[in-house]
Amino acid sequence: MKTVLLTGFEPFNGASINPAWEAVRALEGWRGEHFRVEVRQLPCVFGQAIEDLVAMVDELHPDMVIAVGQAGGRPDISVERVAINVDDASILDNGGQQPVDAAIASDGPAAYFSTLPIKAIVRALREKGLVAGVSQTAGTFVCNHVFYGLMHHASVQPQPIKAGFIHVPFLPEQAAARPDAPPSMALDDIIAGIKLAVETTVSVDADVRETGGATH
Amino acid sequence: MKTVLLTGFEPFNGASINPAWEAVRALEGWRGEHFRVEVRQLPCVFGQAIEDLVAMVDELHPDMVIAVGQAGGRPDISVERVAINVDDASILDNGGQQPVDAAIASDGPAAYFSTLPIKAIVRALREKGLVAGVSQTAGTFVCNHVFYGLMHHASVQPQPIKAGFIHVPFLPEQAAARPDAPPSMALDDIIAGIKLAVETTVSVDADVRETGGATH
Amino acid sequence: MKTVLLTGFEPFNGASINPAWEAVRALEGWRGEHFRVEVRQLPCVFGQAIEDLVAMVDELHPDMVIAVGQAGGRPDISVERVAINVDDASILDNGGQQPVDAAIASDGPAAYFSTLPIKAIVRALREKGLVAGVSQTAGTFVCNHVFYGLMHHASVQPQPIKAGFIHVPFLPEQAAARPDAPPSMALDDIIAGIKLAVETTVSVDADVRETGGATH
Amino acid sequence: MKTVLLTGFEPFNGASINPAWEAVRALEGWRGEHFRVEVRQLPCVFGQAIEDLVAMVDELHPDMVIAVGQAGGRPDISVERVAINVDDASILDNGGQQPVDAAIASDGPAAYFSTLPIKAIVRALREKGLVAGVSQTAGTFVCNHVFYGLMHHASVQPQPIKAGFIHVPFLPEQAAARPDAPPSMALDDIIAGIKLAVETTVSVDADVRETGGATH
Repeated sequence: MKTVLLTGFEPFNGASINPAWEAVRALEGWRGEHFRVEVRQLPCVFGQAIEDLVAMVDELHPDMVIAVGQAGGRPDISVERVAINVDDASILDNGGQQPVDAAIASDGPAAYFSTLPIKAIVRALREKGLVAGVSQTAGTFVCNHVFYGLMHHASVQPQPIKAGFIHVPFLPEQAAARPDAPPSMALDDIIAGIKLAVETTVSVDADVRETGGATH
Repeated sequence: MKTVLLTGFEPFNGASINPAWEAVRALEGWRGEHFRVEVRQLPCVFGQAIEDLVAMVDELHPDMVIAVGQAGGRPDISVERVAINVDDASILDNGGQQPVDAAIASDGPAAYFSTLPIKAIVRALREKGLVAGVSQTAGTFVCNHVFYGLMHHASVQPQPIKAGFIHVPFLPEQAAARPDAPPSMALDDIIAGIKLAVETTVSVDADVRETGGATH
Repeated sequence: MKTVLLTGFEPFNGASINPAWEAVRALEGWRGEHFRVEVRQLPCVFGQAIEDLVAMVDELHPDMVIAVGQAGGRPDISVERVAINVDDASILDNGGQQPVDAAIASDGPAAYFSTLPIKAIVRALREKGLVAGVSQTAGTFVCNHVFYGLMHHASVQPQPIKAGFIHVPFLPEQAAARPDAPPSMALDDIIAGIKLAVETTVSVDADVRETGGATH
Repeated sequence: MKTVLLTGFEPFNGASINPAWEAVRALEGWRGEHFRVEVRQLPCVFGQAIEDLVAMVDELHPDMVIAVGQAGGRPDISVERVAINVDDASILDNGGQQPVDAAIASDGPAAYFSTLPIKAIVRALREKGLVAGVSQTAGTFVCNHVFYGLMHHASVQPQPIKAGFIHVPFLPEQAAARPDAPPSMALDDIIAGIKLAVETTVSVDADVRETGGATH
């Protein structure tokens, strides 16, 4: 029985809801034949978010960790490829912090690649009619921060952990309240996407080999 | 008991599905306290589509007509404001026609405004968390063609008909199959939106007065 | 010798510059073999803008009128196809007015089509490597207002006037100051585009027949 | 007297022109009070492009290297922050290769950060009214490949080299030929931007501290 840790962020930037948390919390208690899921919320706060996630990993000893965050404006469930070692915030986090060009781990490498089977996840979602893609950047805000911190901590564990980050779109109700009419995705579809990502990660040994690249 | 005619187009441009028809067909047999709905499919063919719609109106004598079409790439349910008297096709219709700068009705006015309560519809959808907006153009393909033909025919009926056109986004399964990752909307949300549009049109006497305009 | 009236709007919505006026003013005194150009500024004020334009037409008796306005966010020089009989402002005009769903001319038709050779203009611009397209909507703000007022006045003149409206993008300096990084166009290219539009309108008898339509 | 190496790619993906090369070639022979510029073209070929660039660096011993590439569809001159150690091509390169998820340097780190003063460059461009921004991803095609190879080679030089990558938009003539009307930038503005980037890099000791981050 494998343990899968799923995290979702609290709302941020003045919002009252975060689709990542809404999707993750809906999977509380979900289990498959070979895995069970633990769901937890992370604060949208530089530093504290990584501390909390590290504590969760140390407590649960998960085989897999997928952190989920909101990417408002993207149309798809985007599976992140790489976390980079820099915080550069264009808005305040929930603790009032706005770091600029600060290393996340002063002794860490410039980047970590996701160890999730990102191509297999994207393929599985698309086959079910869900809109998904590989993303080449998780930004430089708390999402990338947590993604980097997760991979950095996973890199020093005795047992291997499959770990990575997935960004999800606005919910329709969020988009409906905005004058710029951004793309959105129904909560049921986001939940279905996260479930497929978990099932794919549990069942796939090696990632599939097909392009998910970008020319720029 | 009012009669509401809802139409949706068949798939076009090589697609195997049209979200407009999927949503409309799901409402077959739907009735409210004061209305019942008739649903019909329209061909995506210049000329024939209007002929069919005119025949349906003459047969059913509806109190309301809402024609629904796909606007692939738009993120919202867009309630059209105006139909213009021109066909200018950038792709072939399902009959192999591609008219350029041809009048729809040689004796008709340059345009007709929708007689649906377009602002009230948009407000009703947004209040339910659905992504919606007023659109200032229905394009120049078969959607605008049918919209214009509908308003032109309604304008000569003895009894008034509330009539108009609504564009809906791609379904997620359509977007998932495209490399450019366009916005999409879950079928359930499209259906909910069309239902609200019908209920609002049946129940509202005068449209609300709030901006739905565009600077350009 | 034909007289061509070119108008450009003053800055609006708090801006200090309007690319339409910057381009138009640069053509002051420009003349070709068969035409001379008069350039004038219009206020971005509902009502007053049409009054001023009507007075200019009555004074100059132009053979051609092209009104030019800013479409911030569009990437191309867009030649407008149709003006509709409605004001619906999402922002304040320079006079503090914000009309909603008000007819421009209570006795006017729902719309007027441009009488410029819009397809020939787009083709001429593209052949010179300028980014251009036909637009199916001029919005519902002061640009559409002036476009409609222009066509309404032209429709009652004893002599025919070729008239229409062209929207131009932000200047690079405007885009550089915005966090959302909208598309922009160099002033030299906007000026070159307006000149080509004038020359094409002067020299073309009938518009070319090629698609400039939109599916929605 | 410092030596600055500027490279631009040859056209790719069937194009007949590359704005990066057009801008770079225009600076042949350009020199300032404290620097002179060497300009070279790179093939759009995985492997060969890095080999050529390494040979140029070994020949010229430049103090600074800026590689320039086309990012068709972006509206701004984007100064890249980070190169990642992966090739994942969604299209063929000019040698007919399409690597998928291949490491660029099997012994290299996951990523390198640019050593150009990226924030100072963006600020300098914006102050001159040029549209610019920091980019968090250079993609996974030959641009990122060369950027990574450049930083990898620079990392083993005895003397420090300031090095990095800048992406530039389509030229107007490229955008004019495309049906999707992407953003573009005048060649003069691209050239002015590259010049400012060189001058800023030569004159700035430490980068400015201001946000250039993205939330995702």
